[in-house]
Amino acid sequence: MTATVGGAPRQRRAPGERSRARVLDQAARLATIEGLEGLSVGRLAKATRMPKSSVYVLFGSKEELQLATVDAARTSFLEEVVQPALGTGQPGLARLRALCEGYLSYVERRVFPGGCFFVAASAELGARPGRLRDRVATYQQQWRDLLQAQAQAGVDAGELRTSCDPAQLAFELGAILAGTDIISVLHDDQGAVERARRAIGDRLARERRDNS
Amino acid sequence: MTATVGGAPRQRRAPGERSRARVLDQAARLATIEGLEGLSVGRLAKATRMPKSSVYVLFGSKEELQLATVDAARTSFLEEVVQPALGTGQPGLARLRALCEGYLSYVERRVFPGGCFFVAASAELGARPGRLRDRVATYQQQWRDLLQAQAQAGVDAGELRTSCDPAQLAFELGAILAGTDIISVLHDDQGAVERARRAIGDRLARERRDNS
Repeated sequence: MTATVGGAPRQRRAPGERSRARVLDQAARLATIEGLEGLSVGRLAKATRMPKSSVYVLFGSKEELQLATVDAARTSFLEEVVQPALGTGQPGLARLRALCEGYLSYVERRVFPGGCFFVAASAELGARPGRLRDRVATYQQQWRDLLQAQAQAGVDAGELRTSCDPAQLAFELGAILAGTDIISVLHDDQGAVERARRAIGDRLARERRDNS
Repeated sequence: MTATVGGAPRQRRAPGERSRARVLDQAARLATIEGLEGLSVGRLAKATRMPKSSVYVLFGSKEELQLATVDAARTSFLEEVVQPALGTGQPGLARLRALCEGYLSYVERRVFPGGCFFVAASAELGARPGRLRDRVATYQQQWRDLLQAQAQAGVDAGELRTSCDPAQLAFELGAILAGTDIISVLHDDQGAVERARRAIGDRLARERRDNS
């Protein structure tokens, strides 16, 4: 059930779904500034100018609101970073590069005002066991597994040297990207993103097969 | 004014100072789990079993308590990571290595239950302008400046190749360390620290003069 608006197909949503999407969009943005713990039915009602009772009906509890916010942020991350990169070239080095560049661009464009939603959420929840941390940890693991799968594909395709350890390479790229996000947001310094581009370019160049 | 206890010299503190130190120790630990925003006079009174009025007298306001907590965490970081490393060898590569290893050991030993205090604080406050963020940003900048100064000393001493860019190297080391902290805490995975050791060893080996 789609309607075409301005040439682009657009999903038609029931009023409840539209309200839900509006609240979650605000919630994910707010969470990167004030933390997931700062989210509450009252805080979101204020930010979206909806009655508190309506927000409550949509989510029921603070934890459900938080979990739905993490899921909405993941959808955004997939759309902004993962899907464009996986539409690039063949599995392997090209997609690995595109994933890293997509991430840096997502930080640079401040898709979320506090930088990467998942770095902020990881830092906030890392030492707080529970469903919310488990959800964030699962999605973060998927991200690093994706980097590793593309590194492995690069080895299999003969683009990366056979001595390349895909798990180690994926770890290093993931750590540099997360560390860059923190430095870039804390100092409001886009130079950090440029330095990360150089670091990642050098790191990948070292693993190229013609460099072994 | 020191007394010797168990062979070690120990600073004699006035009762107010002792209470203050006790509250700040708890505050810094709590902040890495619940965030600096989670600190309050009431929360600390509960955690230290002191009357709320006594905690209030010591700090006066939530912001003063938060700022004092950041300063206390910095003192701990200097003692745990920076001072031991700067007591190692000569300025240059040996101290750069010791700073990185000191940081990884500090994450590995969970000096703070939520990992590196400053990564947690950076992620929490990055997008919240104010005195607290400025204080954290200043200390984090000092840390990266220190890494850069040791890299520069390594170039000056002829240990690192002349093409080494100390600012870029310091950025990369700082980003890998911060990213490792996040991954290690989120997944409670000490393997991340081992991977970081390997990454840093490889990165520094590439900059060695005999590698140019």
